Amino acid sequence: MSNLAERTAQNLLQIRENKPLIHNITNFVVMSFTANVLLAAGASPVMAHAENEVEEMASYAGSLVLNIGTLTDNWVASMVKAGKKATSLQTPIVLDPVGAGATNLRTNAAKQIIKETGVTIIRGNSSEILSLGSSDFSTKGVDATHGVDEAAATGGRLAKELGSTLAITGPVDLITDGEREVRVENGHSLMPYVTGTGCSATALIGAFAAVEKDPLAAAAGALAYFGLAGEKAAEKAEGPGSFVPALIDALYTITVDDLIRGCRIIEA
Amino acid sequence: MSNLAERTAQNLLQIRENKPLIHNITNFVVMSFTANVLLAAGASPVMAHAENEVEEMASYAGSLVLNIGTLTDNWVASMVKAGKKATSLQTPIVLDPVGAGATNLRTNAAKQIIKETGVTIIRGNSSEILSLGSSDFSTKGVDATHGVDEAAATGGRLAKELGSTLAITGPVDLITDGEREVRVENGHSLMPYVTGTGCSATALIGAFAAVEKDPLAAAAGALAYFGLAGEKAAEKAEGPGSFVPALIDALYTITVDDLIRGCRIIEA
Amino acid sequence: MSNLAERTAQNLLQIRENKPLIHNITNFVVMSFTANVLLAAGASPVMAHAENEVEEMASYAGSLVLNIGTLTDNWVASMVKAGKKATSLQTPIVLDPVGAGATNLRTNAAKQIIKETGVTIIRGNSSEILSLGSSDFSTKGVDATHGVDEAAATGGRLAKELGSTLAITGPVDLITDGEREVRVENGHSLMPYVTGTGCSATALIGAFAAVEKDPLAAAAGALAYFGLAGEKAAEKAEGPGSFVPALIDALYTITVDDLIRGCRIIEA
Repeated sequence: MSNLAERTAQNLLQIRENKPLIHNITNFVVMSFTANVLLAAGASPVMAHAENEVEEMASYAGSLVLNIGTLTDNWVASMVKAGKKATSLQTPIVLDPVGAGATNLRTNAAKQIIKETGVTIIRGNSSEILSLGSSDFSTKGVDATHGVDEAAATGGRLAKELGSTLAITGPVDLITDGEREVRVENGHSLMPYVTGTGCSATALIGAFAAVEKDPLAAAAGALAYFGLAGEKAAEKAEGPGSFVPALIDALYTITVDDLIRGCRIIEA
Repeated sequence: MSNLAERTAQNLLQIRENKPLIHNITNFVVMSFTANVLLAAGASPVMAHAENEVEEMASYAGSLVLNIGTLTDNWVASMVKAGKKATSLQTPIVLDPVGAGATNLRTNAAKQIIKETGVTIIRGNSSEILSLGSSDFSTKGVDATHGVDEAAATGGRLAKELGSTLAITGPVDLITDGEREVRVENGHSLMPYVTGTGCSATALIGAFAAVEKDPLAAAAGALAYFGLAGEKAAEKAEGPGSFVPALIDALYTITVDDLIRGCRIIEA
Repeated sequence: MSNLAERTAQNLLQIRENKPLIHNITNFVVMSFTANVLLAAGASPVMAHAENEVEEMASYAGSLVLNIGTLTDNWVASMVKAGKKATSLQTPIVLDPVGAGATNLRTNAAKQIIKETGVTIIRGNSSEILSLGSSDFSTKGVDATHGVDEAAATGGRLAKELGSTLAITGPVDLITDGEREVRVENGHSLMPYVTGTGCSATALIGAFAAVEKDPLAAAAGALAYFGLAGEKAAEKAEGPGSFVPALIDALYTITVDDLIRGCRIIEA
């Protein structure tokens, strides 16, 4: 894991050059923003959720991003089907368990996807992630109610239990695969005031996972890049409204040098 | 109802402090914008529409917002289910009858929701609102074709018939509960050029209703706040595109003093 | 076809004055952006997809726009139903075959819509359009993999085979009805970095088709107007994020004179 900042910069270059197709089955609220975030990063997003289409689409993809916001049962079935196809092709899967812990539908859907497919990386806030383990936590809506340190205490064990790399995001992000642990300090306090910033971070992890074999490096790099873009956007923003176009601009204009200098990935 | 401007300012403070969870079952076009409007105001939006999830989600919510744009039958079923749960918990329900009067599906859905749940406030343009009563009006698409004075003439009677507070919006907004009548003069002519401004106003009424027991004060306050934000946004906008981020910024940055000074709520 | 630039300017004036209702059955990713593009141009967008509503809504519309992104079978059924109604009323239909050629669901859906309804204009990239003909092409995701000249070589024949005017977009757009051919050179390289620019171009063609009887003139004019707005937006944008509000602003503020001067419609 020598120098994750430089590796992240190389991965961003690869995304911009190879434009990997990222197959998203995601929620209605964030589809447009997520697609624009992926495009600004250089990736090629596609959204497709029909049960009779997802296997075909997943087979073209560099990674598959599953997000359980605005969920219904037929979407779960499509996610599982796409996930099985991706698993069979060793295509990385990134899961965003939006609202897991808040309702049974979402908690069960996330657990089913984890059980029936090979999820590579799970990105969520601490409440969502912690609800996926054997012990039970309850969540108010889709907001985090646990701190990153509380998450860190059980994160490693949970990563092993789930067999996935976990990216637990908050003011400081924690990424763990059960063996290694990394923290990302990039980001800005305006980001939670924009809907879909978490979901878009997940999609960016998908883009990095399409070009980077180490899930820990992919997740940490995507979060550092996204957080750095947020920092740059905040310099120009007068509130969460003007923050959005500035964030997309920053994702598009950040250079390899910016990234190497600005990444704050802390290896444990 | 002494000094609605000060009361509105106090309500905004409460929203920012308590971050009430607003459960939205709304249309696909406006989900993202609505969520960003609610976040900028300080509320916590959640979108959830699955029939096997809405009761659980509604039980956490400070208010329930139902919006019938991009409707299908199964969404109506979910709205009724969520609405019954909210009613049983005395959680306020705000209905946006998008396109009522334009198609039978929408007119009937709005009427069914009103009949089967306890709708606290209905926000729509005059054509939509007037289509909900016993007399029939026909509408072209989702745009208003009646003036606010025409609406005022029958608004009070209709509010009594429907058992809800009505917020009939247009260049001047009319709010009536059948006993009292208030007009809101805030707003800007660019707002109808942005999709979802009406729907977002409805969602903001939901946020205010989560902290304010008087539906008339909640609706009038939300519309004045949203209209004032529109006025501030227009000062910076060069068209309806740049108006959007400026509007979100204004919702986020408006102070209590701005609101008390800028509110134009006219009590009859 | 004397002076398409002046005719386009007249058509834009008509859209702004008459505000034709454009009925869109389109994909989740682009609904909001498409609606804002149509509003900025002066049209009245409505999104409605329920099978028990689309005939009624289509009967009010100046044109019907069908877009097969984020497709499922029940949406295809609604599109066909709406399309048959529009055809019976001689209301123009514009089809956007998003991702045709990439999956069987999408290719078959596009072909079914073309076969069972009277599609006036089809707008897509070269890969999508070429996949609709008898010969088969394969596509990676939803991106074009053929150049406009390759498309031009078969475009005329394909337009005759399909009985529709084709608008094959790319760095240079090709519009052909099988007899006549026009190229549009307006546009900007940032446009493909924004999701929904293609879909919004299709919707604008719908707006022009609602006021212009010649499909070739409608398609070419809409694409020139949209491309010109893109050029103006790029002057102010610092990336694809700030490009979006600037594009909407430009659609709203472009004058008849701007359009006559700026249109680059090349008649063969």
